[in-house]
Amino acid sequence: MRKYVLIVAGGKGLRMGGDLPKQFIPLEGKPILMHTLETFHRWDASAELILVLPEDHQPYWNMLCREIGCKAPHRIANGGETRFHSVRNGLQFLSEEIGNTSGRNEKALVAVHDGVRPFVSSEVIGSCFAKAEQSGAAIPVLSMIDSLRETDGNESHPVDRGRYVAVQTPQVFRSDILLKAYEQPFTPLFTDDASVVEAAGISVQLVPGNRENIKLTTPFDLLIAEALFSSVK
Amino acid sequence: MRKYVLIVAGGKGLRMGGDLPKQFIPLEGKPILMHTLETFHRWDASAELILVLPEDHQPYWNMLCREIGCKAPHRIANGGETRFHSVRNGLQFLSEEIGNTSGRNEKALVAVHDGVRPFVSSEVIGSCFAKAEQSGAAIPVLSMIDSLRETDGNESHPVDRGRYVAVQTPQVFRSDILLKAYEQPFTPLFTDDASVVEAAGISVQLVPGNRENIKLTTPFDLLIAEALFSSVK
Repeated sequence: MRKYVLIVAGGKGLRMGGDLPKQFIPLEGKPILMHTLETFHRWDASAELILVLPEDHQPYWNMLCREIGCKAPHRIANGGETRFHSVRNGLQFLSEEIGNTSGRNEKALVAVHDGVRPFVSSEVIGSCFAKAEQSGAAIPVLSMIDSLRETDGNESHPVDRGRYVAVQTPQVFRSDILLKAYEQPFTPLFTDDASVVEAAGISVQLVPGNRENIKLTTPFDLLIAEALFSSVK
Repeated sequence: MRKYVLIVAGGKGLRMGGDLPKQFIPLEGKPILMHTLETFHRWDASAELILVLPEDHQPYWNMLCREIGCKAPHRIANGGETRFHSVRNGLQFLSEEIGNTSGRNEKALVAVHDGVRPFVSSEVIGSCFAKAEQSGAAIPVLSMIDSLRETDGNESHPVDRGRYVAVQTPQVFRSDILLKAYEQPFTPLFTDDASVVEAAGISVQLVPGNRENIKLTTPFDLLIAEALFSSVK
């Protein structure tokens, strides 16, 4: 099956406190987003990468690619209002290639990945694709280390952390399943692609993630990212 | 009110993959546990520190303190079978000093802290103590960054991560509340001190934690710890 990866980089990065959207912050001389693209290219050079990026970020991105030289060939689709809309735009961009019309049986696998998660391991990408090929939908998850509480703002109570997992990306789906799921109207309950697909009645398989695959969101995360890059060398 | 801190270092550290219990792993020339003790001593030199440590680790610890020189004065209590039993041992060790007999009105505040969390900030320690003095029981918590799912091993479904928080330490209590709570028999439902206190009918206040205050559990965490130490200098 053909493999597609939508790298979603829609966030404005306000949580970082700076003006530069966080996917553009340089680590080891290269924007985080470029590291993420190259991670997937290193995993499988035949996987087709689509970067979903807000239109007004694209000139800056193209300049960065010219200046620095991105080793991962990719095409660009326009980002949307929310993550949901960005993914839907990316799917529309691809729909000609991956469309599941009645006269066509060939299906593809589509991964959706956060642009600010450059540290996903090849093993995790591979196992998500393998599980999705077999079952239709697979996502990487991690067990919780800290204790967990449920709270409504006033009251709170402990819950059994063994019953919860933290969800990462890439979230990988058979193309027909993902295209169909993204025909649903947006609701704020859609927190990730798995929740969109499940709302369409498809069950999602869990695959063990890698702990390094953090979403680079805060200045503390950037510090971790620098340490991870140094350790790899 | 007098302030006590029980630093609990009972874990065998098997998750680290080595033989050395993780609290003894050196960072910047000093065992993690010593960093943790010194963090509390820096916060308030009048706070009395009690290290709860398995008896068979104590000779090694005493040697480390002689060789390296621990800047944080502390006393040592014997660790127990589980975290619950270690905390109970620490409280028994202190019960003469902090006992809430009927003829005695003075109360103390007691914090319980994981030995492998050296990065708690002074602000978080201070706000937990302040909130506990006012309300009886306070713990530091963090919002969730990743999406969250509940799973029973076979099925899973997304939950609203906005309704959950990750729990850290120090967990701080008025001494009478904590002593009373730890008279209860052990159950595996006690995942932290807050859950013990709540089982005794006391409600616990939540205070914002600091994201750096991770529990050093895996080799990945050690890498983060090294980066955090470098950034502080």
